[in-house]
Amino acid sequence: MEQVAVLGAGSWGTALSMVLADNGHAVRLWGHRPEQIKEINTKRTNEKYLPGIELPELIVGYADLCQALENVRTVVLAVPTKAIREVLGNVRQCLKEPITIVTVSKGIEPDTHKRISEIIEEEMGSLLQDVVVLSGPSHAEEVSLRHPTTVTVSSKNMKAAERIQDLFMNHQYFRVYTNPDLIGVEIGGALKNIIALAAGITDGLGYGDNAKAALITRGLAEIARLGSTLGANPLTFSGLTGIGDLIVTCTSVHSRNWRAGHLLGKGKKLDEVLDSMGMVVEGVRTTKAAYQLAKKLGVKMPITEVLYDVLFNEKNPKDAVDSLMSRVKTHEMEDLVNILDKSEQEK
Amino acid sequence: MEQVAVLGAGSWGTALSMVLADNGHAVRLWGHRPEQIKEINTKRTNEKYLPGIELPELIVGYADLCQALENVRTVVLAVPTKAIREVLGNVRQCLKEPITIVTVSKGIEPDTHKRISEIIEEEMGSLLQDVVVLSGPSHAEEVSLRHPTTVTVSSKNMKAAERIQDLFMNHQYFRVYTNPDLIGVEIGGALKNIIALAAGITDGLGYGDNAKAALITRGLAEIARLGSTLGANPLTFSGLTGIGDLIVTCTSVHSRNWRAGHLLGKGKKLDEVLDSMGMVVEGVRTTKAAYQLAKKLGVKMPITEVLYDVLFNEKNPKDAVDSLMSRVKTHEMEDLVNILDKSEQEK
Repeated sequence: MEQVAVLGAGSWGTALSMVLADNGHAVRLWGHRPEQIKEINTKRTNEKYLPGIELPELIVGYADLCQALENVRTVVLAVPTKAIREVLGNVRQCLKEPITIVTVSKGIEPDTHKRISEIIEEEMGSLLQDVVVLSGPSHAEEVSLRHPTTVTVSSKNMKAAERIQDLFMNHQYFRVYTNPDLIGVEIGGALKNIIALAAGITDGLGYGDNAKAALITRGLAEIARLGSTLGANPLTFSGLTGIGDLIVTCTSVHSRNWRAGHLLGKGKKLDEVLDSMGMVVEGVRTTKAAYQLAKKLGVKMPITEVLYDVLFNEKNPKDAVDSLMSRVKTHEMEDLVNILDKSEQEK
Repeated sequence: MEQVAVLGAGSWGTALSMVLADNGHAVRLWGHRPEQIKEINTKRTNEKYLPGIELPELIVGYADLCQALENVRTVVLAVPTKAIREVLGNVRQCLKEPITIVTVSKGIEPDTHKRISEIIEEEMGSLLQDVVVLSGPSHAEEVSLRHPTTVTVSSKNMKAAERIQDLFMNHQYFRVYTNPDLIGVEIGGALKNIIALAAGITDGLGYGDNAKAALITRGLAEIARLGSTLGANPLTFSGLTGIGDLIVTCTSVHSRNWRAGHLLGKGKKLDEVLDSMGMVVEGVRTTKAAYQLAKKLGVKMPITEVLYDVLFNEKNPKDAVDSLMSRVKTHEMEDLVNILDKSEQEK
């Protein structure tokens, strides 16, 4: 039994709070909207994010950040990537001792091109004991229904990752694997949202499952290409945080990145889409960051490039997808072999 | 322009005939039911297999096999795997010159454990010029609607594969890649049907997308494990005939293997399911073959083993899936690393 703070009372933060509570831990769930926290504590619900779900008694909501962090050594960070630096700035003000942060947000920061764990290290300095990444194919809605789910944890310090594995793992519905490839786990989790946006567009255009499967496959190759250039183990992209997460994000109506892409494919403008979602669509920001990174490092990322033009240069989605389909005939293995060659050279 | 015979007037044989006809080739489509051939030639439809689709004029149906094969050097074989030896026995009787066979059926033969291309070599002997495998994420229904689709061709003789690539490829909707890893392409295409059956069962049990994504990911690892033991390049399983085909087969209602699994998950018996489908469910036979192969070669295939018990030993589907979920916590990379170690050792 441990006291754990969860920062961010959106769907994923709340669902993970439920897992921790089911495992017998006392969860201090922080959110910045007092009325939502009041709802959590009095009605035991979080209707906006997990409609119809009853929250366990072991979850207590806090609208005051420092109060939520009292006597806590493990903090789950589940805020939108855009808010991370600001929230951590406030976290620092509350702390006397270093904490371990479990990050469950997915993205790469535009302009700095930092992964979330790097942002956390930078912001927390000596107040950070360890940072552990938790990622994998896991819709919050399904976790809150206690449907069987598997995720992966990773860290520079695998002892810390194993402690977090034990904290979350249970035999009823939540399985946790470990993977020492921190870069691969983070890159896979971030970039899958780009492919989900693109998959949503092909679905919105009415192109069917064959086209989407091809897109996901080529998308995985492009994720692996950038990832291995950044130092990831290419094999990680064949695991839960690669293919697994990609499948769930690209083929499920629960995925907000897919939903945003779907609306774009139907002809809506980006601004309208983001307004109508009411939740953060991480893939939009990540597309910008990945586009910049690919240019900087000279990595071919055709799907990312085309999506960037759709999102930021008003390229027509149909023309964009058609241009992806009409590339000249090639050997399928070329891309994949290039990835492994790359990783071999670096040894 | 070429004369091409397509043997098998099911959904895939007919859809591929349409691609060839769209590319300007004269297609001689053979089926063993005279009334179906009459429908194809008079009404330009094949309602049972591709409802609502109008067939191009360049497709001519034949109920007589030898007539269909007249003056043809390229034959597309699109019959159920169970019927291949018998059909090829009849094909031999019609031929004077060797032909190139393009096989588009997916499976491994129980007991002999032969891949389709090996069965074809064995049956055809000196009457075979080349055998080319065509595989990838491609529902026949979508191809017949001319939705964008990508597939891969492979052969021992890559010149032959490239000729088939040119035959099928067009710029409107059908893209064809080449991959020299014949074993990997065939094993991926065959074993994906096992995972599709299992994915259908988890869906039938109501387990959700998280569970299914985990199953597909673990399934891919197990396919790659058997495939690399048989001599395949592990990278092939990250391509169109691996992940791509797996995604389409496991997440689409078009997939008959998924549909069969779905009915099993809902509590139907195997016999009832097969009766009600009215089409061949290749995954059932392939599960038996893969189970035998895994035992013989000492390869761990937990999903295949559990599915074998469901199909042939009346194991309860819910107990089966739950037993897969409750394995002890492990390092995710172990399996994947084992695959590459294996392929390294063999060099």
